[in-house]
Amino acid sequence: MANKQLHIGLFGFGVVGKGLYDVLHTTPTLQATIKKIVIKQADKKRSIANENFSIDADTILNDETINVVVELIDDADAAFDIVKTALQKGKSVVSANKKMIAEHFEELLQLQQENKTALLYEAACCASMPIVRNLEEYYDNDLLKSIRGIINGSTNFILTKIQEEQLDFKAALSLAQQLGFAESNPALDIGGFDAANKLSILLAHSFGVITKPTGFIFNGIEQVSLPDAILAKEKKQKIKLVATAKKLENGKLAAFVLPQFITQCDDLYQVQNEFNALTTESTFADQHFFKGKGAGAFPTASAVLSDISALGYDYKYEYKKIFHQTDTELSNDFYLTVFISTDDLTKIDKANFEWIEESHNEFNRSWLIAVIHAEKLAGTAWWRQEGVSLILCPDAIIETVEYKKISKRSLELAGVV
Amino acid sequence: MANKQLHIGLFGFGVVGKGLYDVLHTTPTLQATIKKIVIKQADKKRSIANENFSIDADTILNDETINVVVELIDDADAAFDIVKTALQKGKSVVSANKKMIAEHFEELLQLQQENKTALLYEAACCASMPIVRNLEEYYDNDLLKSIRGIINGSTNFILTKIQEEQLDFKAALSLAQQLGFAESNPALDIGGFDAANKLSILLAHSFGVITKPTGFIFNGIEQVSLPDAILAKEKKQKIKLVATAKKLENGKLAAFVLPQFITQCDDLYQVQNEFNALTTESTFADQHFFKGKGAGAFPTASAVLSDISALGYDYKYEYKKIFHQTDTELSNDFYLTVFISTDDLTKIDKANFEWIEESHNEFNRSWLIAVIHAEKLAGTAWWRQEGVSLILCPDAIIETVEYKKISKRSLELAGVV
Repeated sequence: MANKQLHIGLFGFGVVGKGLYDVLHTTPTLQATIKKIVIKQADKKRSIANENFSIDADTILNDETINVVVELIDDADAAFDIVKTALQKGKSVVSANKKMIAEHFEELLQLQQENKTALLYEAACCASMPIVRNLEEYYDNDLLKSIRGIINGSTNFILTKIQEEQLDFKAALSLAQQLGFAESNPALDIGGFDAANKLSILLAHSFGVITKPTGFIFNGIEQVSLPDAILAKEKKQKIKLVATAKKLENGKLAAFVLPQFITQCDDLYQVQNEFNALTTESTFADQHFFKGKGAGAFPTASAVLSDISALGYDYKYEYKKIFHQTDTELSNDFYLTVFISTDDLTKIDKANFEWIEESHNEFNRSWLIAVIHAEKLAGTAWWRQEGVSLILCPDAIIETVEYKKISKRSLELAGVV
Repeated sequence: MANKQLHIGLFGFGVVGKGLYDVLHTTPTLQATIKKIVIKQADKKRSIANENFSIDADTILNDETINVVVELIDDADAAFDIVKTALQKGKSVVSANKKMIAEHFEELLQLQQENKTALLYEAACCASMPIVRNLEEYYDNDLLKSIRGIINGSTNFILTKIQEEQLDFKAALSLAQQLGFAESNPALDIGGFDAANKLSILLAHSFGVITKPTGFIFNGIEQVSLPDAILAKEKKQKIKLVATAKKLENGKLAAFVLPQFITQCDDLYQVQNEFNALTTESTFADQHFFKGKGAGAFPTASAVLSDISALGYDYKYEYKKIFHQTDTELSNDFYLTVFISTDDLTKIDKANFEWIEESHNEFNRSWLIAVIHAEKLAGTAWWRQEGVSLILCPDAIIETVEYKKISKRSLELAGVV
């Protein structure tokens, strides 16, 4: 039981950094102390003595007695520079910066290998929940078929409020900001970028696929309208922003982040407010469901702490799926059943659809349910326009449409449709 | 990435052992092969060649080329002998035998230390779910406040059928047996022994407490009556067999396995049939919820496989809570709010209660809700009689009753009660 003494250099002293500092000083079992904290603004009033702080990154990076760098700053570019230098200097690194990790995954992997040091980032996915480590350690032989989850707390909070209190999008966002569940600049969250960054990280640890968010379809929740939420409620469903990755029958991988209608029998139905959740499906273990707080200073600090603790035992990600498994490729060669609502039907290019299952015109909003090839979503932008809302139906993925096309055609011939 | 070559000696070739054999022969990433299988009956017809089998345990235990023993037999005493000898011979061991592990925890811990070898048993708690490893690895610094869960699949299946289809206990048990969710001798499951064995293992990995099931209060579901289930349904609640461990304000630990009424807002409410689930509550991460299949050949084989895979990376439990944390003691010095129903009120010794909150007499069954000191449950047997059913109320634990006693008394003085 080699419990290594950890000397930490901390970048960032926001709520998470501050929380971590407090926890480290009250946790007797962890042999870790913060030696120096690098901050951006020197003149801010702090709760601990000034000599703990520096505005010069090199006071940490050039200090050979510091063996662990904990990076908790917002700026993804600055974070990458810090993490890169720290790894090159042989220091272990803990980070919570999903954007930085998703954008530089391949380089970060190489840096870890070249410098024989560890980068851990449990806090970057679903905050307190041990998702990365479980995907890495536990679901390695039993073949994963799919992962699916709610991995952004802000959007889930906003959608919960739209649906439960029938707030419109702006009012719900404003409430989320007041309660500290959304950033003052919420674009990363509500545009789906944050969830896409997290899915990018999860894809590497669950299926060995390295891809930036630009490699798969994703969208946020800005276009989800109150009438959509009311319709969901009438059907006893909820709308959630869901990240999905699913092995197709052809061995390739479907992956996307899109809003989806969730039925009552879906485990994700109960995941409300700032909670996150992930469902895994594997050949032998069948379905597993994890739920926990996906946002907030303490849940994030808790995951960071767990990574620091793991470094004490020389833990590092083995990236087993990347190195040991047959190459899995992303593919958009599958179909999705989608609900589309709009204030103006001319915004919808119906030529994109395989077929339309339902079509409704109401007072000031029209909506339809249609089947579309994923490549046509990836390659077009009409469905991202203002006034158009695209939401996946439950069980949206269809791998092949031949049979359905035929039966649809026979219905038409019979005059039923 | 030291991926050690594993030469496995397998004890037992039931459904789990057979499943494991098939999986190992189709998993390319795992450098593990089964060298020999020891079985009890030599004359049974097998699906693989006879030369794989032996009825002599020593063909595995004395084979120095075998470095991993996988023990999948029913008999806990025979299992202990095998595991003990294997560890003494320096072999790593994977076991799914909760009864054996719970009964011999301290000896097994010592054997691992003395022989510097690993015993892994993820499959012993909640089958496929990675509960032991998460408790061991992840919840080590963030202080756990409680764990609470449904950790026996058979009883959960039976209770689900009683409640959903209003079967009586015997009919539900018989259905569970027909469907393979209960053993032909179901005493270990329905008597609560299996769940108690699992809680015993969980206590060690979550709070560092080593205790046999005799060290805490437990009961099964045999006495849960159909009228109890109907009453639960009227209140929109369900009855589940729940294992609980909770840190008390005095630093001691409350632990028990008892049936409990579960409200709709409880995560355990959605856990139906043979599923298992565990909720953890910790200071910083807050609540986490895990759900997965807790029984069945494949989910169990999946957990065994994951342990075998971990041995390839020289993984062993560090038992951090046992070795690094301040001693936590079990205590029955707390109160429980309980529901008690009976066919004969004279079976209930009311002198045991702090006070009675409700009392009802119906046609052929009486029931009451009362507050009782846990020590009075631990030290008496009246509530285990046939015709008496004791079910915890939601939020059953009360740490101190002084205030409530006084307010109760003032209600009495005011003539309200």
